[in-house]
Amino acid sequence: MASKPNRNKLEGTRRDELLKSLLETGWSIVTSRDAIYKEFIFKDFNQAFGVMSRVALKAESLDHHPEWLNVYNKLQITLSTHTCSGISEMDITLATFIDSVAK
Amino acid sequence: MASKPNRNKLEGTRRDELLKSLLETGWSIVTSRDAIYKEFIFKDFNQAFGVMSRVALKAESLDHHPEWLNVYNKLQITLSTHTCSGISEMDITLATFIDSVAK
Repeated sequence: MASKPNRNKLEGTRRDELLKSLLETGWSIVTSRDAIYKEFIFKDFNQAFGVMSRVALKAESLDHHPEWLNVYNKLQITLSTHTCSGISEMDITLATFIDSVAK
Repeated sequence: MASKPNRNKLEGTRRDELLKSLLETGWSIVTSRDAIYKEFIFKDFNQAFGVMSRVALKAESLDHHPEWLNVYNKLQITLSTHTCSGISEMDITLATFIDSVAK
């Protein structure tokens, strides 16, 4: 990946390469639009919102924000890039960060 | 309302009385289940997540949590009480708090 993620739509083998490890950790491609999705189940709300808080700070620093639904200990996250109407390096970067703090 | 909100299902005129002011501020009754719903539009993600953080702390102290979907500056909140499968004083209390911090 480039040193700084960009918002260009990922395509071809580069897309496949960057998505590979995320798909192995439970992210999936949304069928209705070009986006990635993952559901996390935490111990309780406290743990879920703790992760959301760390992701929120990262999202602000990237200026790239998740779509997320939280119900108590459950957190469903969808990532895509508005400007390219698809998946960009930004989504890969944010998804990787989310996995790191959700462990 | 009693000094401490309980989780009993609200019914009859007491329910109508407690819901009245919330319905006037934009909350609505969900049709598919006994719950209340409101959508908030903020200036940006920072403002939306600021409100979410305050609501999260309140939710923890009440041990009563929202179902919420956030997409950048948009926040959709559904409130209902699991133990009674309906709307209780807990939902009224949390909704009123949410309105107060979302202003």
